[in-house]
Amino acid sequence: MAKIGIADTTFARVDMAGFAIGVINNNSEHEIERYTVPGFKDLPVACKLLFEKYKCDIVMAFGMAGPEPIDKQCSHEASMGMQMVQVEAGKHILEVFVHMDESEDEKEIFEIAKNRAEKHALNALVLLEGKEALTKNAGMGKRQGKDDEGEIKV
Amino acid sequence: MAKIGIADTTFARVDMAGFAIGVINNNSEHEIERYTVPGFKDLPVACKLLFEKYKCDIVMAFGMAGPEPIDKQCSHEASMGMQMVQVEAGKHILEVFVHMDESEDEKEIFEIAKNRAEKHALNALVLLEGKEALTKNAGMGKRQGKDDEGEIKV
Amino acid sequence: MAKIGIADTTFARVDMAGFAIGVINNNSEHEIERYTVPGFKDLPVACKLLFEKYKCDIVMAFGMAGPEPIDKQCSHEASMGMQMVQVEAGKHILEVFVHMDESEDEKEIFEIAKNRAEKHALNALVLLEGKEALTKNAGMGKRQGKDDEGEIKV
Amino acid sequence: MAKIGIADTTFARVDMAGFAIGVINNNSEHEIERYTVPGFKDLPVACKLLFEKYKCDIVMAFGMAGPEPIDKQCSHEASMGMQMVQVEAGKHILEVFVHMDESEDEKEIFEIAKNRAEKHALNALVLLEGKEALTKNAGMGKRQGKDDEGEIKV
Amino acid sequence: MAKIGIADTTFARVDMAGFAIGVINNNSEHEIERYTVPGFKDLPVACKLLFEKYKCDIVMAFGMAGPEPIDKQCSHEASMGMQMVQVEAGKHILEVFVHMDESEDEKEIFEIAKNRAEKHALNALVLLEGKEALTKNAGMGKRQGKDDEGEIKV
Repeated sequence: MAKIGIADTTFARVDMAGFAIGVINNNSEHEIERYTVPGFKDLPVACKLLFEKYKCDIVMAFGMAGPEPIDKQCSHEASMGMQMVQVEAGKHILEVFVHMDESEDEKEIFEIAKNRAEKHALNALVLLEGKEALTKNAGMGKRQGKDDEGEIKV
Repeated sequence: MAKIGIADTTFARVDMAGFAIGVINNNSEHEIERYTVPGFKDLPVACKLLFEKYKCDIVMAFGMAGPEPIDKQCSHEASMGMQMVQVEAGKHILEVFVHMDESEDEKEIFEIAKNRAEKHALNALVLLEGKEALTKNAGMGKRQGKDDEGEIKV
Repeated sequence: MAKIGIADTTFARVDMAGFAIGVINNNSEHEIERYTVPGFKDLPVACKLLFEKYKCDIVMAFGMAGPEPIDKQCSHEASMGMQMVQVEAGKHILEVFVHMDESEDEKEIFEIAKNRAEKHALNALVLLEGKEALTKNAGMGKRQGKDDEGEIKV
Repeated sequence: MAKIGIADTTFARVDMAGFAIGVINNNSEHEIERYTVPGFKDLPVACKLLFEKYKCDIVMAFGMAGPEPIDKQCSHEASMGMQMVQVEAGKHILEVFVHMDESEDEKEIFEIAKNRAEKHALNALVLLEGKEALTKNAGMGKRQGKDDEGEIKV
Repeated sequence: MAKIGIADTTFARVDMAGFAIGVINNNSEHEIERYTVPGFKDLPVACKLLFEKYKCDIVMAFGMAGPEPIDKQCSHEASMGMQMVQVEAGKHILEVFVHMDESEDEKEIFEIAKNRAEKHALNALVLLEGKEALTKNAGMGKRQGKDDEGEIKV
């Protein structure tokens, strides 16, 4: 049994963590630690504490980015912070970010967010099984938040 | 009782730190340490010293960015520096930045700055209570500097 | 005999790692360790573990980036993470990335991916021979994924 | 008495360091250590050595960036390097950069460079006095290289 | 007598390292260690090994970037990796990069590459003499790869 960290924000407009927690609870006995911060730039420290203080084996980080160029810059800073944290820890942070310009339809944003959260929760469970547990799907064009694109056939 | 660091700049055109200090003093007994630097690229070192030398438990960093592309680049550098500092410290820096292109009206910039500073001061107080103190608002579309966008309902 | 790490993703649409493994096995006795992750932002941690836990001497990291600006940003974050890892380890990660906007023709993307994977597998084998093993080709305009451009003659 | 590091470049077209040294010598007894490098990407190492080998308490780094996008990229890399150095040292590097596109008039570039160097030299002297020595000017819209913008009044 | 590291790539289309080595050998007794990698993203690890394993006192890193936006992104990643390495080592890496969009004429690219390599080789020799050896040229608008722009006179 492992411990899965869940870091999320009050900025996001969908409770993505809730969907991921549902998938984890339905498919495993893993323990969950949750940490909620204001915005995605606060996620790296939350992830670090989930690894170091709360002893998580893997973390999922949920965020939602606005549609403006400055929002992209901020999501980049959050992602770089999470690279620093996961490289230091030697443990994966699955970044589950939704960008508000992925669709103009709020309902579709909701569906993307839910689908991405749930599929990445399954990814987290498989990654915990070992470094080759996902190898059967290597190069298969898997997507989270939308349909798989699939392998290029020639 | 905790210690809250306040890092701000002489470059900014609004005394955001003053608003945050008001909120902190009205809502808590926490001690405050303030550190003022010329511009936002000087904030990361100020934050580091607030953590290491002045033993702050959390830091709020206030900055204001000009409207030009080079100003965005500089704010990015400041933000990356603060990611380095907070990841190293394992403690949150709440970045309270206002971009001068958020409005063409100076009065509105003032209101954004005041609102963002005050709401993030409240976030700092709640974060000090623990990792799930903000979870009741996870995914609720909270905003600082403007009205909440709210949860997407489907 | 050395150990070569192979890190790849389920996001990619071509099994580039498979081509590289073929080249390595046909041209050497080196041992191979494979690690498959969901997307390229997960590669840096995989590479770190291939170095530290699985004792690889060099790593090849395979990824495929979508055609949108946000995909470029994400590939940048993955690359920066891999810079952190390889600089810390003092060992090379050969980054084998294909961008979906390198061609509008899927078949050509496949050929670029295969060629780049195979040529970089040969690069990995030569790099393992020492710091001057590639010097005979220094400044010769070598390319992976397409034809060599060659040396500028004056 | 403190020690102030001065790092500058042969690339710049104005001897900004000279102006800063004049201000420091006219207003303090602080010792000065100077380090000149070819371009601004070489400044981070110079700053690090000024801190570690030459025991400076604060460093001023002077650079001039060309007008092209690639010059902005390079200045960004220099700035990121200096963030790494100052965050590691826990000591301030005041970055005094002039961009050649701040004016089309060389004489004005000269004036901006001189003014920015001199005002930041005064900032360095005040920062050495302590973390609240600049607080009286917090949020006052101070500028270096041009006139102050001042506080937004409402 | 010092040791100068030379890191270069098979991707570049001009043997810049060769020109630099000529200058070093004609003007000094310094020892040279060369390390050739496939592309410029592989330079940071080469530089690190030149410092740590081969005990170089300074390193010159030669690379050539393609003309597309993605090439600029890759050169940025290489440069950031080299900032990490040189800041960690506290020793200079002189980055000698040529961008293929500096000229549409291959012959001119060759001349820029040769000139930049040779002038930076001289810079390396002077930097080895100490932190103020270049100060006589501070602010003098020196350029590598093209003619000096010179000091702004007012």
